[in-house]
Amino acid sequence: MHPFTPTARTQVRRLPERGVYDRAQVHAILDEGNICHVGFSIDGRPCVIPTGYARRGEEIYIHGSAASRMVRTLAEGIDVCVTVTLVDGLVLARSSFHHSMNYRSVVIFGRARLVTDPAEKVEALRCFTDHIVPGRWEEMRPSTEQELKGVSVLALGLEEVSAKVRTGGPKDDAEDLAAPVWAGVVPLRTVAGDPVPADDLASGAPALDLDRWARAGRPLR
Amino acid sequence: MHPFTPTARTQVRRLPERGVYDRAQVHAILDEGNICHVGFSIDGRPCVIPTGYARRGEEIYIHGSAASRMVRTLAEGIDVCVTVTLVDGLVLARSSFHHSMNYRSVVIFGRARLVTDPAEKVEALRCFTDHIVPGRWEEMRPSTEQELKGVSVLALGLEEVSAKVRTGGPKDDAEDLAAPVWAGVVPLRTVAGDPVPADDLASGAPALDLDRWARAGRPLR
Repeated sequence: MHPFTPTARTQVRRLPERGVYDRAQVHAILDEGNICHVGFSIDGRPCVIPTGYARRGEEIYIHGSAASRMVRTLAEGIDVCVTVTLVDGLVLARSSFHHSMNYRSVVIFGRARLVTDPAEKVEALRCFTDHIVPGRWEEMRPSTEQELKGVSVLALGLEEVSAKVRTGGPKDDAEDLAAPVWAGVVPLRTVAGDPVPADDLASGAPALDLDRWARAGRPLR
Repeated sequence: MHPFTPTARTQVRRLPERGVYDRAQVHAILDEGNICHVGFSIDGRPCVIPTGYARRGEEIYIHGSAASRMVRTLAEGIDVCVTVTLVDGLVLARSSFHHSMNYRSVVIFGRARLVTDPAEKVEALRCFTDHIVPGRWEEMRPSTEQELKGVSVLALGLEEVSAKVRTGGPKDDAEDLAAPVWAGVVPLRTVAGDPVPADDLASGAPALDLDRWARAGRPLR
């Protein structure tokens, strides 16, 4: 896979060593996240909304009610910026100044395309469902006409994209190294608690296997 | 504490039952998050950048290198939108359509103020440091003049603010309730792995007590 080409907007200028344009790494970050933050202008002023998403090849899909302001606004083809961030750890240094976080983030610039083809819309719903719960789509009944009408799907191409990644320990000044404080990284990860069955779960329903996320490369334990 | 007054931008219109304007709840969400997503325009196009932040009273602080494009742009007093999102769970329904996530998010609109008073800047650094690691500030040597010069701090007032919260189980259609699939919520939380000491950690440095986050109401276990 060829890497992304940095543009004026995606060239990481501050701490350029953190900039990543490798396509596989960008895909991996997008596939691991649960939500994205969508930025767009309304009446000339910025608005940032969290929402679910899913990647399919070289696009990501986002969706919402056909009535949602965000979806209707983006469907006009205005400029959008979608950012996905994973926080991997807290970095404790010997000085306040060098405290930091380890993270992986992807920023996508572009203009979204409203998905109108019914078959692609169904495929997008499959991506959303399997992104939340790997393999879930094939356990579900088909979507109804009414459901498909009620949801709007937008596609955003992975064209103008960059990732930024910080890993590793604190970068302290030499004169601070002997300070009598703990320094290092507290790794953070997202884990599942005990599943909470729906109040009205059918008595014969199978149990939930939490390892389905691990098998898809997104362990929740 | 009086609640926030909804404006044209912060009135939650889709699923209004999820809208929250209670100040204590907004504060609690802001105090629990590690990062925010900052939205602003560059050359008329939206840009969304993840960064650390900390709340102090009725403002949040964000910061960055004095050389960073985001900080220099926001210091001009342009419109900004800052969003903090906590993902609390995956909601598994009996139909693809009703899959969802439990979350708590806060959206803040406004214009940032560049913090120029040296004492307030130090106070902001204290907030950032203690937000990442509760109680850390008092273990640290004072910041140097050069460190204070190298960092720019912006303050954004909590004036035009809303929160959105989804909790609870799936909302399925009655005709799907008997479907032979597990339905309910997989709670998600952020936990710490084993702390990784810096390679050059002083041999006499004390161990890290992971419970300091729990004592501050932000458990990482």
